[in-house]
Amino acid sequence: MKSIIIASTSTLHGGKYLEYLLPTLESHFKNCKTILFIPYARPSGISHDEYTQKAKEAFSTINIEVKGIHEFENPQDAVKNAEGIFTGGGNTFLLVTQLYKNNVMQLLSDTVKNGTPYLGSSAGSNICGLSMQTTNDMPIIYPPSFQTLGLIPFNLNPHYLDADLQSKHMGETRETRIKEFHAFNTIPVLGLREGSWLDVKGDKITLKGDLSARLFKQNQEAQELEPETDLSDLK
Amino acid sequence: MKSIIIASTSTLHGGKYLEYLLPTLESHFKNCKTILFIPYARPSGISHDEYTQKAKEAFSTINIEVKGIHEFENPQDAVKNAEGIFTGGGNTFLLVTQLYKNNVMQLLSDTVKNGTPYLGSSAGSNICGLSMQTTNDMPIIYPPSFQTLGLIPFNLNPHYLDADLQSKHMGETRETRIKEFHAFNTIPVLGLREGSWLDVKGDKITLKGDLSARLFKQNQEAQELEPETDLSDLK
Repeated sequence: MKSIIIASTSTLHGGKYLEYLLPTLESHFKNCKTILFIPYARPSGISHDEYTQKAKEAFSTINIEVKGIHEFENPQDAVKNAEGIFTGGGNTFLLVTQLYKNNVMQLLSDTVKNGTPYLGSSAGSNICGLSMQTTNDMPIIYPPSFQTLGLIPFNLNPHYLDADLQSKHMGETRETRIKEFHAFNTIPVLGLREGSWLDVKGDKITLKGDLSARLFKQNQEAQELEPETDLSDLK
Repeated sequence: MKSIIIASTSTLHGGKYLEYLLPTLESHFKNCKTILFIPYARPSGISHDEYTQKAKEAFSTINIEVKGIHEFENPQDAVKNAEGIFTGGGNTFLLVTQLYKNNVMQLLSDTVKNGTPYLGSSAGSNICGLSMQTTNDMPIIYPPSFQTLGLIPFNLNPHYLDADLQSKHMGETRETRIKEFHAFNTIPVLGLREGSWLDVKGDKITLKGDLSARLFKQNQEAQELEPETDLSDLK
């Protein structure tokens, strides 16, 4: 049975890395002594080792060991044998490129669908959708495809940000960007604000955290969804 | 001789479409009765016709006619025969996809390098660089390549936005995103704030407008460049 946490962000303002999620993660990964960390998204360009160290420190507080996928000779074996898997945030274009390059995109999808507990944050959450086409990231590298894990039957926009009505900036708002996506795509997009996450247990998808999330569907007005909303039928 | 205006934005807060640039454009397109408009970037998903109408209205105030590239049977002939060319903003992924699909990317580059006056704003400016990899836009469509016109020997980030130090949002700042680009790419990136533009005359590139621009180079501290800075040697 699928068991997945899909978080908008790893870190809340003023908090430590993963801190707000630790009680949830303790239960989510309760059967894991060690989890596999996928550091491919490299936020700010930090190295795989540096990034893995950060994950190690956070998980050590709940007595879970962390090993980076780059520490294994064979990344496919690392995914297959993992007790649990965490993909961290950073640049989604880079993450997706590396998942394809290391031939683990399909395998990761199959593995998580078969029940290995998974945590994604930010870019690691973006890839849980059908495609990475609603990422906020810069296209710093050209991935072989925009298709992602498809663990849920819609797309995500993590770090969802409401338009600042006081702003004099003329760049597109997040909502406008998602509207542009829907000029060409029918997939629903869930804007997950920082502090929100999705809890996936089997086919049941539930919105968690204190904030509402914003749901965008093609040719429809956007809609606010309250915490604990059941999203199992969204597609 | 190349003659190009590369604008961060089409519109300033509180102003009309292209209004702040019209005196510059009157001189830039002084030998043109009609210019070709490339509406492929479709901001907010508006149609080619709607978008072209918007450009027509702005240019009518300086007595220049506008014809959309989609109104021609053969887009290549439209580019070849244009007296002047304007590519509007919107989604850069869509714009680049359409330029490749209509087989005009290389031709447009050659035509502008050979002296046809060009105006780009936002996405239409992004494509003037070596690649579209420092766009702010969402990857709503998968382009065949990220390579763009290469009219200047560096990349641009239009609508450049300084980090809001008061913000509690944890998504990456623009500067962090560009830093991620430089983890993999050596191309300099110029962050052009709204109201700034580059004036290109032959090999001379000059920063115009009232604001400074922010220059990012791999492994170097970012640098503020004052208006009228000569960027001809930047590469």
